[in-house]
Amino acid sequence: MTEEPVQKDSEIRRSNSSMGCGHKDDKASLASSQIAPYSHQPSTPASKEVWKKGGRMFSILLAVHLALLACTLVSSGAFEKIAVHDYDVFFLLTVMMLIVIIWIIFYLVSTARCPDAILCKDSHAGPIWLRGGLILFAIFSLVMDVFKIGYYSSFYSCLSAIKIIYPIVQAIFVVVQTYFLWISAKDCVHVHLNVTRCGLMLTLTTNLAVWMSAVTDESVHKAHSKLKKNVTDDLLRWLLKVGMRSSSAEVCNCNSQICQIFKNGYFWLYPFNIEYSLFASAMVYVMWKNVGRFIDHHSHHIHHLKFKLFRRTFFVGIVLGLIILVSGLGVLIVYEVQVNSSTESSKKSQALTMYYIFNIVCLGLMSLVCIGGSVIYRFDKRDMDRHKNPTRTLDVALLMGAALGQYAISYYSIVAIVASTPRDAISALNLTYALLMIAQHTFQNIFIIEGLHRQPPKEDHKHGSRQKDLCGLTFVNVSAVSLRVPDGGSTLAPSTAPGTEASLPSDLVRSLTAPKKMNWRRKCLREISMFLLLSNIILWIMPAFGARPHFDNDTELNFYGDSMWPAIVDICLPFGIFYRMHAVASLLEVYIMS
Amino acid sequence: MTEEPVQKDSEIRRSNSSMGCGHKDDKASLASSQIAPYSHQPSTPASKEVWKKGGRMFSILLAVHLALLACTLVSSGAFEKIAVHDYDVFFLLTVMMLIVIIWIIFYLVSTARCPDAILCKDSHAGPIWLRGGLILFAIFSLVMDVFKIGYYSSFYSCLSAIKIIYPIVQAIFVVVQTYFLWISAKDCVHVHLNVTRCGLMLTLTTNLAVWMSAVTDESVHKAHSKLKKNVTDDLLRWLLKVGMRSSSAEVCNCNSQICQIFKNGYFWLYPFNIEYSLFASAMVYVMWKNVGRFIDHHSHHIHHLKFKLFRRTFFVGIVLGLIILVSGLGVLIVYEVQVNSSTESSKKSQALTMYYIFNIVCLGLMSLVCIGGSVIYRFDKRDMDRHKNPTRTLDVALLMGAALGQYAISYYSIVAIVASTPRDAISALNLTYALLMIAQHTFQNIFIIEGLHRQPPKEDHKHGSRQKDLCGLTFVNVSAVSLRVPDGGSTLAPSTAPGTEASLPSDLVRSLTAPKKMNWRRKCLREISMFLLLSNIILWIMPAFGARPHFDNDTELNFYGDSMWPAIVDICLPFGIFYRMHAVASLLEVYIMS
Repeated sequence: MTEEPVQKDSEIRRSNSSMGCGHKDDKASLASSQIAPYSHQPSTPASKEVWKKGGRMFSILLAVHLALLACTLVSSGAFEKIAVHDYDVFFLLTVMMLIVIIWIIFYLVSTARCPDAILCKDSHAGPIWLRGGLILFAIFSLVMDVFKIGYYSSFYSCLSAIKIIYPIVQAIFVVVQTYFLWISAKDCVHVHLNVTRCGLMLTLTTNLAVWMSAVTDESVHKAHSKLKKNVTDDLLRWLLKVGMRSSSAEVCNCNSQICQIFKNGYFWLYPFNIEYSLFASAMVYVMWKNVGRFIDHHSHHIHHLKFKLFRRTFFVGIVLGLIILVSGLGVLIVYEVQVNSSTESSKKSQALTMYYIFNIVCLGLMSLVCIGGSVIYRFDKRDMDRHKNPTRTLDVALLMGAALGQYAISYYSIVAIVASTPRDAISALNLTYALLMIAQHTFQNIFIIEGLHRQPPKEDHKHGSRQKDLCGLTFVNVSAVSLRVPDGGSTLAPSTAPGTEASLPSDLVRSLTAPKKMNWRRKCLREISMFLLLSNIILWIMPAFGARPHFDNDTELNFYGDSMWPAIVDICLPFGIFYRMHAVASLLEVYIMS
Repeated sequence: MTEEPVQKDSEIRRSNSSMGCGHKDDKASLASSQIAPYSHQPSTPASKEVWKKGGRMFSILLAVHLALLACTLVSSGAFEKIAVHDYDVFFLLTVMMLIVIIWIIFYLVSTARCPDAILCKDSHAGPIWLRGGLILFAIFSLVMDVFKIGYYSSFYSCLSAIKIIYPIVQAIFVVVQTYFLWISAKDCVHVHLNVTRCGLMLTLTTNLAVWMSAVTDESVHKAHSKLKKNVTDDLLRWLLKVGMRSSSAEVCNCNSQICQIFKNGYFWLYPFNIEYSLFASAMVYVMWKNVGRFIDHHSHHIHHLKFKLFRRTFFVGIVLGLIILVSGLGVLIVYEVQVNSSTESSKKSQALTMYYIFNIVCLGLMSLVCIGGSVIYRFDKRDMDRHKNPTRTLDVALLMGAALGQYAISYYSIVAIVASTPRDAISALNLTYALLMIAQHTFQNIFIIEGLHRQPPKEDHKHGSRQKDLCGLTFVNVSAVSLRVPDGGSTLAPSTAPGTEASLPSDLVRSLTAPKKMNWRRKCLREISMFLLLSNIILWIMPAFGARPHFDNDTELNFYGDSMWPAIVDICLPFGIFYRMHAVASLLEVYIMS
């Protein structure tokens, strides 16, 4: 964590207690907030400047405590032996969602309608493809909630009411929150600072708690279905017939056709709900960072980049990506069928071999392409973009953080394979797979981070207009020209450093004469990012929809034991899956910017 | 994570490949690096400015991968069932330490001797009490290494050599690293940027790996000794007599008096080694953040604060703190004796009751005092200090992060106590203890963070000299005066905002007439921080030297089971213990600044 620059993002204390809108003393307070950092006298009551970190502290504390409470309950509820039940978790989540719904309505009705509530908007926050993705996932989440309601109402008589109330409240929550994020994701709020911060942190924590609950639920379900398969089917059927003939079991079992469809349906839709929660969390976090922020419109040049899918490319990236995507879907289906249906170990190892080979080819190609892209960036003459941009900072942090999950799984795999004695072909494939997984994550992160920090291209129409501008300024003082160039720092002060006049003219002349010969580089970058995007989608689909070679190949399971290895995978894999979806969003941005 | 301000901390690319010192083109490159953010032309090869984040990326990746590898090996080595042995871990750690030693020697001999290697020093980094603490812990670590060498050489014939080599290398590592940090903690390095970054990250990772290994070793040792006690002693003695009569067991057992002393000695000294690793990690991290940093000496006013223990105070804080400290030591000794020696459950519950009551009193007092301190800060007229200060940012992050460990333990405790049915006096005490633990961590964090962000007092001699300065400037333009005041922002530009002239004079006049009546507040803050400091020391000593009410009171153990609860405590408690020692260091800083 680094300290924030204070001049750009100062904030003003407004009367917050009365729940009314803050008074408008705009110009004066803005001015005083800009002066405050320069003056070091003991601050007086008249000074309205407050300490931003302090203002954030309370909301962070609220979020930390709520998140820990939710984490405790969710993790305890996952174990059958522990006397915490899933309805305890559902109760907590329902209460949290209801509070968030109330706050969002308060925000939309009261806070956002205040005069001067939103003095500026952050153009980087909530780009259209993120909001579009959010709506897509929201729709699937709603379908999942309908399935859940249908499933639980099949035997509502023997369940606590909270199990049906929970999906209903969740559906309302999804609708309200999606609407809220659609219209307010870019807001920099300037009234009700503390209430807004706490509300946003509450929303963030609720989304994370829903995510934790969904991930745990899915893992428990997977573990159960694995366990069920291991017990001989005949025994199970016999047990069901003999043991469950009591009246309550008859009513409370999911035997009807429609109930089974509901159940399978909602487990298939879980991955979308999981992604919805994470997308919403990311957007809410950026909103929270933007509370009380003033954006300097001079330094903040807004790019209206359009998403043009079929602009001049060679189509190599898209075609190759689509081939990978389709063949990956085929591999996934064959793998699932062979591993789940057959009990022969030879068929299982065939399926595993196929899975590993496909992944090795795919990861190898992606690593090579990422290295190529990074090399192209080395020769790219575009400047680095250094503006404060909470969205991008969050993107980078999430990419680096989420990759840790897959790294950890791979390292544990490698240690287990190297230390285990029977070294067959499958072990070799598994080792290669783990090593390539590490390499691919590393190279892809480097490529994406470099791509996100580039200035967007200006050649199209801006280049022309700028050329004209500069031609009209040939005889003007050069330091004035430097002021016309969009400002990179945070202040509007003219640069006082010596040497300005000496170095600027040559740069300007060079930018005027810059040839368009590097267009092929841009095209290459576009191909690369499109290929990576499609490959990441298939690498998201595979684990998200149930491929678990970690358990089907029992090297690691035998090495670490039945409790440690599932714990490692169940904790780390959700981050690995999230990484893929997040990489897709980031690669789309890289594609558009290159 | 937030983006860093770019103007202040720009860096210069220097020729790094030849391992020679960077060329000195100081003024020109410094100037161009200050211009670069203002110019948005595509950068040319002539521009020497590089992207700081990119320079850091490689070293971060190196650290992440090494840390994960170490984490995998250490956690696998902790389990007897897993075929990873402790000598695998020792081998990795020894190699890492040897590389770090080589790099440190290279740094001291080559990098630090380059002309312009260290253009400026960060006055906030490595304050004297941190370095003093480091040396204290280093000495204890060396004693521990001697004990370890003695213990292992008692039966060297049946051990792999690495078990004796490891403590020898560790002793050398501790000596070299302590010397390195003593003389270079404040350096802002400007040559061999990439090598230095990687070396520092390697040092950081090595320290963290040693910390992980020590913590795991200690937990395993504790679990073993608990287990041994549960087996009836007679049975154990019989087993030892009958079963271990083979020749190898005779030689490889630690039966001699001196060997037992060595063994117990080194386990008692582990807490110091653990703290040493963490202190060194924190200092190395700050050095890493300072690589390539330019410190604006105008904005960076250096405070030469002296540590005066017995400056005018009422002695209430120290006396009360010492009472708590001494009685805490008594409670710890009685608790350890009663819990470890007696097998009666009534004596055990007596000891637990005593432990809980002492902690509740102590935590309650500390919480009240922290609230009082925060209220005093509300009325404190000193300005907030907003300078970039990596040391402080790290302090705050560590305080908030390390508190999570204790929070997690407390939340799990609370859930277990509330959900368990037999509610006796001990459960009530345990619940109060857990709740107060959460409250105390929260209030103490608020107090310390507020304290660290205050401007140090200027009343002593600076106030006088400034008064004189201002008197001589009565008729000078006020905006010129604002330039004389130590600069709060990052640039030297005169503030161009409107309203400057309107608001400044009154502030200046007020600061001139500020009375010294608030001296009692300072005194109160000093009392408070001294009391908290001593209380935190006893709360560090108790868990660090073996008090584990988490396992002696079996409510949570029965609720979560034998695998989950030890996992929670063993992972979270080291952070809780680290929190206490780190709070002591931060409170010392708060004491000195108030």
